Amino acid sequence: MSEEKITMPVSGDEQAVASEARRSFLRKSVAVAGGAVMAGTVAGRAAAEPLAIPPTNKMLGRGVVSVPYGMPSKFEAHVVRRNVEWLTPDTIASISFTPLQDLEGIITPAGLHFERYHGGAVDIDPATHRLVVHGLVDKPMIFTVDDLKRMPQTSGVWFMECPANGAMEWRGVQMDSLQFTHGMISCSEWVGVSLLDLMKAVGVKKDATWFYGEGADGSGLQRSIPLPGAKDQFGKPIPDADKIYKDIIIAYAQNGEALRPENGYPIRIVVPGTEANLSVKHLRRIKFTNKPLVTYQETRHYTDGMPDGRFRQYTLINETNSVVTFPCPDKKLSGKGAYEIRGLAWSGRGKVKAVDVSVDGGKTWKEAKLVDPVLSKCLTRFIFPWEWDGKETLVMSRAMDETGYVQPTLRQLREVRGTNSIYHKNSIQTWKITANGEVKNVQIENL
Amino acid sequence: MSEEKITMPVSGDEQAVASEARRSFLRKSVAVAGGAVMAGTVAGRAAAEPLAIPPTNKMLGRGVVSVPYGMPSKFEAHVVRRNVEWLTPDTIASISFTPLQDLEGIITPAGLHFERYHGGAVDIDPATHRLVVHGLVDKPMIFTVDDLKRMPQTSGVWFMECPANGAMEWRGVQMDSLQFTHGMISCSEWVGVSLLDLMKAVGVKKDATWFYGEGADGSGLQRSIPLPGAKDQFGKPIPDADKIYKDIIIAYAQNGEALRPENGYPIRIVVPGTEANLSVKHLRRIKFTNKPLVTYQETRHYTDGMPDGRFRQYTLINETNSVVTFPCPDKKLSGKGAYEIRGLAWSGRGKVKAVDVSVDGGKTWKEAKLVDPVLSKCLTRFIFPWEWDGKETLVMSRAMDETGYVQPTLRQLREVRGTNSIYHKNSIQTWKITANGEVKNVQIENL
Repeated sequence: MSEEKITMPVSGDEQAVASEARRSFLRKSVAVAGGAVMAGTVAGRAAAEPLAIPPTNKMLGRGVVSVPYGMPSKFEAHVVRRNVEWLTPDTIASISFTPLQDLEGIITPAGLHFERYHGGAVDIDPATHRLVVHGLVDKPMIFTVDDLKRMPQTSGVWFMECPANGAMEWRGVQMDSLQFTHGMISCSEWVGVSLLDLMKAVGVKKDATWFYGEGADGSGLQRSIPLPGAKDQFGKPIPDADKIYKDIIIAYAQNGEALRPENGYPIRIVVPGTEANLSVKHLRRIKFTNKPLVTYQETRHYTDGMPDGRFRQYTLINETNSVVTFPCPDKKLSGKGAYEIRGLAWSGRGKVKAVDVSVDGGKTWKEAKLVDPVLSKCLTRFIFPWEWDGKETLVMSRAMDETGYVQPTLRQLREVRGTNSIYHKNSIQTWKITANGEVKNVQIENL
Repeated sequence: MSEEKITMPVSGDEQAVASEARRSFLRKSVAVAGGAVMAGTVAGRAAAEPLAIPPTNKMLGRGVVSVPYGMPSKFEAHVVRRNVEWLTPDTIASISFTPLQDLEGIITPAGLHFERYHGGAVDIDPATHRLVVHGLVDKPMIFTVDDLKRMPQTSGVWFMECPANGAMEWRGVQMDSLQFTHGMISCSEWVGVSLLDLMKAVGVKKDATWFYGEGADGSGLQRSIPLPGAKDQFGKPIPDADKIYKDIIIAYAQNGEALRPENGYPIRIVVPGTEANLSVKHLRRIKFTNKPLVTYQETRHYTDGMPDGRFRQYTLINETNSVVTFPCPDKKLSGKGAYEIRGLAWSGRGKVKAVDVSVDGGKTWKEAKLVDPVLSKCLTRFIFPWEWDGKETLVMSRAMDETGYVQPTLRQLREVRGTNSIYHKNSIQTWKITANGEVKNVQIENL
């Protein structure tokens, strides 16, 4: 863009002071290469030139409703979901990752919500879609989408996280990309019908201790979700069965509008705080039962490989986790000086209580500031003012939730879980900043 | 869609109970025309048929990242911004309206955020865009977008409302459409740099009592924004000058991602709680001054015509307001029975404290339930369980904010403002439900 050096556009009483202002600029001009860093964390340049009128000030833009449904700027074309080509044999049963490195705030735009399909994303006609609710109930019922919208409405701002988030970190794949280390998490305002209201409507019998949801897409995903008193197929009580069900909704809206096709349009289950595969998309059936389905999703998939070679089932809650989103491998530093270390923390058990940041590889920790609003089972932002001295630095964060659980180191996690796991990897992430400002994904020996 | 009547898809131990379940369905089948309404507000149909496998269960969908930036379902194509063709001579300087009738939750999807242009929407390259901050400051400075992103970050979930929202209601245009009566409001999570931090960086002088923002788009919008001690051109103090500036940010992100072009990409001012034209888009200049600009935007536009023929300036805060979003003219009722009356309330002065609903034309009022989270200067949802008897009904809502201000009736508003106003119309909205379930926009005599 070639800026024309002409006088400022002024109006009213501004005219009188315009040339003085310009002279003032020139007087105070101080050329600082690479950006002046002020006291604290303020970056900027001394005003070294008069205001030149940019071309955009001299042209008309597009009219209203020429884009009835708006899209991002063409200069943001790099902010997209991405997949890892070698990770799955086919994109039909695969994962795309949210570009956390380019996002600010706690809301994930629906268009950038990570995708996980078992049989590809379908776009189902809400006019013909039905939800059947049956099993251990007094009144089996069929609901249209409009029926559900007419029922009492409830909502929450909750994260949605695949239990495989961070999976590549278990055994050293360690891609240099925040998008791929942690991009299987997104956060939305979800709106729908409370499971408790649905249970009341159909009259769930007292001996129901489970229900399962089933999707109307090609994968026909079925997942068992525990109710109070739930036991596994061997009679062992399911952890947290008395907690998980309370917040569950049958969602029809996400971030203000209808669910997106790849997020389960027209309706899905949302089980706040738990591994996202419980939140069955394109929901067509809920069946109340007194035992789990024990399908391959609950035996082969979505179980935790333990050190003794056996697999742990039904550990559903996503425990406390956090990651530094700036700096990160996708966002290098432009030189030494003042920055804010920024990141995201979350807990499937409630609110994040505190986040510590270390800039010396975990030797010392200081508390970061949490950004309002801090909501339960929701992404929470943290901010930590920091002056980079231009030397190699190891940056990490660790979160604590309101239950007192502290995010573990990888060593602590391996002591319990061994090295056979794919899922539920919530240990502390380390970024190494090199002297040239690049950021690498590293694991520190013995941490 | 033709559903095939075949057996349910089952797995694991489900097989055994499948046929029993189907028989159970058939036994309990009760055909109820138009939907069965249960006790309370539960709508649904008794399960009258076995689960037929829909076609979508038998096909594969699209793969991940085949849509790198997701879009709504094709079945939601009606949920778009719309304009009123006769309202402005050209869409370049015009308004599009948010489809509130189709939205749920407090977040407005960025693609549906209402648009107000004075010279059309432009898409400005962030790499070359600059913000100049000058005037009554110690250090005039120029900021790149990256400079701003490096500064301390702050944010909030705030509504953005054009002061002309509701303008057509002043004198009986009264379109039968919520989108057009109230669609000039949207709500987003805004992220950026605090004005207070920017003021610290440039060293604003003590005699600065105003600043103005200027846009880099064709309209070159300039608006004066008061700081503590601000007086108008006649020496009269500006109301709330000690309150408005505290929350102001220079925003670069909205709902998690970069601002959309039509919302001021790459940076804009956000002045929470005030008329949206203060929140100058495509911000290229902030100048600190000791008086307002008094441009035509502040004399001809964006002033309140008073009963005596004069125009009131600088009444910037959007006062407490509310509207019932269901039912509404765009969403008729499908028959008598149980519903939830739902709506939105907001106040430019802080939190909404309470919302009352009337279903008898304002004779009696009952308190609605507010939906969490209730945030300051943010859309707040309210819900009111209701049984429609199928007769003509007048539905309205009135909000109260935490300052104790109660949303006025139109008569109360006219007593103060007369009939010359275009802006700041926040009186109680009445929807008339006719016996066939249609909803009309009406004004009640003497209310």
